[in-house]
Amino acid sequence: MGVERTIYIGPFIHSKSLSELDICPNGAIAVDEYGKIRFVSRDIKDGQVSVDGGWEKAKVVKTPKNGFFFPGFIDTHIHASQYPNAGIFGKSTLLDWLNTYTFPLEGSFHDIQKASRIYNRVVARTLSHGTTTACYFATNHVPATNLLADICQTRGQRAFVGRVCMDRMSPDYYRDASVSDAITSTRQCIDHIQRIDPEASLIIPIITPRFAPSCTHDLLLHLGNLHKETHLPIQTHISENHSEIQLVADLFPNSKHYTDVYDATGLLTPRTILAHAVHLTPDERRLIKSRRAKISHCPASNTAITSGTAKVRTMLDEGLTVGLGTDVSGGHTPSILAECREALYVSRHVAMTEGDAAKLSPEEALYLATRGGAAVVGLEERIGGFEVGMEWDAQMVSLGAGVGDGGELEPGEGLVEVFGGESWEERVHKWVYTGDDRNTVAVWVRGRLVHSREGWND
Amino acid sequence: MGVERTIYIGPFIHSKSLSELDICPNGAIAVDEYGKIRFVSRDIKDGQVSVDGGWEKAKVVKTPKNGFFFPGFIDTHIHASQYPNAGIFGKSTLLDWLNTYTFPLEGSFHDIQKASRIYNRVVARTLSHGTTTACYFATNHVPATNLLADICQTRGQRAFVGRVCMDRMSPDYYRDASVSDAITSTRQCIDHIQRIDPEASLIIPIITPRFAPSCTHDLLLHLGNLHKETHLPIQTHISENHSEIQLVADLFPNSKHYTDVYDATGLLTPRTILAHAVHLTPDERRLIKSRRAKISHCPASNTAITSGTAKVRTMLDEGLTVGLGTDVSGGHTPSILAECREALYVSRHVAMTEGDAAKLSPEEALYLATRGGAAVVGLEERIGGFEVGMEWDAQMVSLGAGVGDGGELEPGEGLVEVFGGESWEERVHKWVYTGDDRNTVAVWVRGRLVHSREGWND
Repeated sequence: MGVERTIYIGPFIHSKSLSELDICPNGAIAVDEYGKIRFVSRDIKDGQVSVDGGWEKAKVVKTPKNGFFFPGFIDTHIHASQYPNAGIFGKSTLLDWLNTYTFPLEGSFHDIQKASRIYNRVVARTLSHGTTTACYFATNHVPATNLLADICQTRGQRAFVGRVCMDRMSPDYYRDASVSDAITSTRQCIDHIQRIDPEASLIIPIITPRFAPSCTHDLLLHLGNLHKETHLPIQTHISENHSEIQLVADLFPNSKHYTDVYDATGLLTPRTILAHAVHLTPDERRLIKSRRAKISHCPASNTAITSGTAKVRTMLDEGLTVGLGTDVSGGHTPSILAECREALYVSRHVAMTEGDAAKLSPEEALYLATRGGAAVVGLEERIGGFEVGMEWDAQMVSLGAGVGDGGELEPGEGLVEVFGGESWEERVHKWVYTGDDRNTVAVWVRGRLVHSREGWND
Repeated sequence: MGVERTIYIGPFIHSKSLSELDICPNGAIAVDEYGKIRFVSRDIKDGQVSVDGGWEKAKVVKTPKNGFFFPGFIDTHIHASQYPNAGIFGKSTLLDWLNTYTFPLEGSFHDIQKASRIYNRVVARTLSHGTTTACYFATNHVPATNLLADICQTRGQRAFVGRVCMDRMSPDYYRDASVSDAITSTRQCIDHIQRIDPEASLIIPIITPRFAPSCTHDLLLHLGNLHKETHLPIQTHISENHSEIQLVADLFPNSKHYTDVYDATGLLTPRTILAHAVHLTPDERRLIKSRRAKISHCPASNTAITSGTAKVRTMLDEGLTVGLGTDVSGGHTPSILAECREALYVSRHVAMTEGDAAKLSPEEALYLATRGGAAVVGLEERIGGFEVGMEWDAQMVSLGAGVGDGGELEPGEGLVEVFGGESWEERVHKWVYTGDDRNTVAVWVRGRLVHSREGWND
């Protein structure tokens, strides 16, 4: 699918390293008809870029005042099917939360009209928050899972779509009848996605055992074999809550620990995304690192359902690859920008007991939200930054026109307050701490405009 | 100032007790020309209320679909002058944060034009978040502090406005030159406010020693005497951070503890608002309770600058009076709705170490934001709920038209997702966890419309 050659002119910001942003106030980025970045100019004059080689006729998109281009966000863990429950969890913790809120909702996705309404909304909403790539848990229903893949493709969101496998410890109305049923159904979803996107340019199937407690050893083993056969990525949960960890120990008495359950069944691989990782032991972290498996940090969820505080600084220091996940609806928000804030705040709660080094900076949170997430999903060569050859998965952020002399609010404006005189770094911090979807005025995936707000390009 | 007699028709929700909301789906509330609630109907039919006694001609305001009336929020602790720094604090903690970010900004409020722009913005913005009452720390500048009072009155926000007193441990450019200077300046602000609002119907002066470390014993003593003379309320900080507590111990070697510093100087009274109270000892809590002083809980700030986690459940169980404070700009948000979310999350971090009983519910957070705050500021007979005789400080909340079949987003709509079938309780939870200022479509103080969003009354 070709897009119009476009030159994006204005400030652009992306991560240079974990702790440092590359802020380029006078940039221009040229994106070709394949959605790939062809050249990057770092110091153009007066907003004009001189081009040749057929780029003279390219479309031009410019940022507004207090605007900048930023890589699209990567949500490495989100349950699309749980979206209607966002904000509803009472005082539950993981295991009762599943039974009270989650299984009844997920189990209803045999209703394809309901699935269509919810999945369309999730994809529209996450795009509006600047999420250009999402790792979705769907449900165990094949038609609804395939529909989610279709919707992502139609709306243009890059996505990993997983049919959830679970053959025990789930209600009768929502469980795979057998291992072979689970594998057959999973293959049907893989086949569908590979049919609609044979080159995996946008939508990628992902092998999805819900988590160890709801899968028999036999099912895990078959899913591990499926990975060996297909080389497809894997996503699951790990070490979220103490009761769950005890349950895994009870259910898998021959395993050394939770991580070993996945390792022993061929599911701990460089393409594995492990959500939560709140209570991992040093031994488990070493094993995860040696297998080059990846971590999805879900701070809002970990706080909301009182799972605990993941030790992100420790994991980063040890060389693990970490991204952010909203974990809707354990987490209340489908916004990765909001999740950055949650990551910053959870890191401060860790710092209260473990010392100041645990604190994350806004720059680090944004790294996790972009480059980190890209590495978690194995696409670090293609997305998460603005290098030549990478794909244009990006958002245009506008911090508004600034506060006027009279202090009046303008209709429709967002919450970020630019009083003038803030450095670029401070403006980025304000965006992270006080921004929301109103600041994400346009979103592109592979060069295609997939979301915009009214008046974004006036 | 008279307002038009109005009958507010639609669902209304307010706190019945700490843990219970009174949800009235078919209500009508009549507000007279003094902004007082004259009658409340709990079960009207078809949105029609039959009235007599001159109410036939009253104006009618109805809620939209998925709308309800809710008491205005009370922010018991906000530094109006720090607003431009919201979201900017790096990895600092209290004492370095003051020197790096706060004093330079506050010290600049000799510039009255700057003060005007910032204070107008703060009042407009907090009103837009549904804050009908705010306890403001201004700066030590008399003209700027008086201007803040003027702005609150003009814009119609109920406010406690305090000139900040500090005669040591502050930079040369921003410090009261002497105790008598501090008292004289404070009296000038009190006089001004009592001149513009002689009946204290909206704006009330508040005695404001910044916090013990920046006040000499002599200054505290004089401010205590000023309270004895004027009976005006008092606001200050207490026990926010370990270094600060140690500093107080060093500066006041004859005091038993931090709380005793205020008690010994006549500042621990039933009209005293103590912000933070993160690390209070049981002995201090007993003393605070016996003096009937009040607590402003500021969870966002306590997390952001890594002060610690206030033990709200303990304080409530012991019978202390607690409200919420945004503590801008230690806290990143001027929204009490967002602060409810922060309170819920901080309570979960407390629960991780102290057990599940520490968890707050959305109902409890909303109580703290309304009735609790009203009690903290001593106005529990007048605001915070919808009883006959109370004043109409209220917001109209709209959760939007609901998610359509196609899942499309509508321009301008907020983030709360009503899929249909949610109970009222669940809708309220969604508002608390996912709502923002877009859901607060109109705001009244004493019956006067002080904020509305475009199209709120279509």
